[in-house]
Amino acid sequence: MDENIRRMQDFADLHGKQLRPHVKTHKSIDIGRRQIAAGAVGITAGTIGEAEVFAAAGFDDIFLAYPIWPTGGKASRLAALAARTRLRVGVENVAAVDALVPALGDRRGSVGLVIEVDCGAHRSGIAPHQAGRLARCARARGLRVDGVFTYPGHGGRAGSREGAARDQAVALRAAVAALADEGIRAEVVSAGSSPTVAFSTDDVITELRPGEYVFNDVDNHSLGACELDQIGLFVATTVVSDQGHDHVVVDAGTKALAREGDPVRGWGQVPALGGVLSRLNEYHGFLRLPAGGARPPVGSVVPLVPHHVCPVVNSFDELILTDRRGSDLGTWTVHARGRLN
Amino acid sequence: MDENIRRMQDFADLHGKQLRPHVKTHKSIDIGRRQIAAGAVGITAGTIGEAEVFAAAGFDDIFLAYPIWPTGGKASRLAALAARTRLRVGVENVAAVDALVPALGDRRGSVGLVIEVDCGAHRSGIAPHQAGRLARCARARGLRVDGVFTYPGHGGRAGSREGAARDQAVALRAAVAALADEGIRAEVVSAGSSPTVAFSTDDVITELRPGEYVFNDVDNHSLGACELDQIGLFVATTVVSDQGHDHVVVDAGTKALAREGDPVRGWGQVPALGGVLSRLNEYHGFLRLPAGGARPPVGSVVPLVPHHVCPVVNSFDELILTDRRGSDLGTWTVHARGRLN
Repeated sequence: MDENIRRMQDFADLHGKQLRPHVKTHKSIDIGRRQIAAGAVGITAGTIGEAEVFAAAGFDDIFLAYPIWPTGGKASRLAALAARTRLRVGVENVAAVDALVPALGDRRGSVGLVIEVDCGAHRSGIAPHQAGRLARCARARGLRVDGVFTYPGHGGRAGSREGAARDQAVALRAAVAALADEGIRAEVVSAGSSPTVAFSTDDVITELRPGEYVFNDVDNHSLGACELDQIGLFVATTVVSDQGHDHVVVDAGTKALAREGDPVRGWGQVPALGGVLSRLNEYHGFLRLPAGGARPPVGSVVPLVPHHVCPVVNSFDELILTDRRGSDLGTWTVHARGRLN
Repeated sequence: MDENIRRMQDFADLHGKQLRPHVKTHKSIDIGRRQIAAGAVGITAGTIGEAEVFAAAGFDDIFLAYPIWPTGGKASRLAALAARTRLRVGVENVAAVDALVPALGDRRGSVGLVIEVDCGAHRSGIAPHQAGRLARCARARGLRVDGVFTYPGHGGRAGSREGAARDQAVALRAAVAALADEGIRAEVVSAGSSPTVAFSTDDVITELRPGEYVFNDVDNHSLGACELDQIGLFVATTVVSDQGHDHVVVDAGTKALAREGDPVRGWGQVPALGGVLSRLNEYHGFLRLPAGGARPPVGSVVPLVPHHVCPVVNSFDELILTDRRGSDLGTWTVHARGRLN
């Protein structure tokens, strides 16, 4: 993990980008502090709850990269956050802009809006050429517009990383131009993600928001976004049954692993054994082993690599720290675990 | 939920079975108490951590239906549990029997072992005809054997409920006979599960361990195990983006829903809208809507029915209670959330 933090910071520095790691992956104040100490300019959060946990711990520059909807209790929580930390929030529709005005009240000028544009993932985000219109609408209501962001989610498929990063640069350039047409300078031009970051070096981009790189996982390795020995998180799981099938049963199931993976590649891997989790129940994982390979005895602990690390970390309250030799160095809390709102 | 609790208890009573609901589904002391008040004989837990939470709240009859492996801290936790509540634990291999002897120490006689047999799910569980040998081995080490259990997990596929329940009865009968050959009477003959319980009325069975029936979900409805209006849990999710695609984006993703479902049927449903979650990211759900159907506006809250309810409940710290009209009746804690060990 320490090497991953260093490597990503070096990459950002080399290309003159600000690094703003997404804390959704680790949700841990201790790890966030290491990222800041290494040179990160601030953090990215996915929910108000995540942002609150880090703001309370003294993180003073937070971008909530999500299409915000500030009704009910969220309105006052957002205003309280803005009083505590330098805050930017994502916005991508007029209704949300309208809702932010009463939500932020007097703090209206102290929150920076970052317009989300769609670069091909077709998740959330306005079309890039419409970003200027939305920015103008926000300004007319007394809100501050700081820039634009996008998420190249279509770069999470095999062979698509470079193309998605190219789409991302095209969309961000168009959005910056659309803001400029309204006389608004995009101070922040923010790009994702761990799978695509290696190709996100276009001049238009000012900041990078990768999250998963801190731990990496099977998905990032399959995509070519990391080496096997750059994976920094394992689920320590115990073999509880061996009835002579082509699998043994381990005590990690859907409640630990969130059924991330797919039926073809499985739901988690134990590289040292060539083992693949071929099926999951809630508290049971079916660890399929190669014929003739080593068979871990009942009671032994095997290190499982998740397909997608983020929901796995969110299943646990604590991380156990080790060095490369596996020595136990203590535990850290997953402070923002379960802060889904 | 109240009606589901009543209906399952009536079914068990009608067929002369003891009901021992699996608390993995709700993990809530309040709901467990309602099940006991309705007539349940005790509860089933899936982990030592779950059992600890319920034992601390005064539940005095707990079956830990899992192939126990009592090393490290788990040995003393198990002994402490046995001092606090009437405890039975699952066992299905000699290594675990051997490990239980030092783990339980003086409390050896106060914990009942229930031998797990495989009835076709090929998960954990010894072959039924070998149950007697394992029981004899446990007795020889001073442990107490109370009976046998199995889980008809292969009854969770379309059209397979009745056949799996039949396999279950055959396996349990064989296991009871194998114990009898060793001179051991099976006091407990325990059967799963919500999808198969309607067919689990064979005379050999003494107790039923369904869990999901308390809430039900899309999977149970698809299998014919419940009606649509018997679903008692919804994820209240807010529409945060509508960019005119065939979907809107809601704020429930993998960290809320654990990616339960499949790519064909989706990852959750909003029956009132004909909406299906066709894709999930961590904090984003792609709610696909039928062409020409109602389109919920940004900011509106829609009730989502999960495919598999258990991991979803485990993602949250609180349940919001409502009546049939949707009135807010307060909140309950998910006390055993995250107790995976």
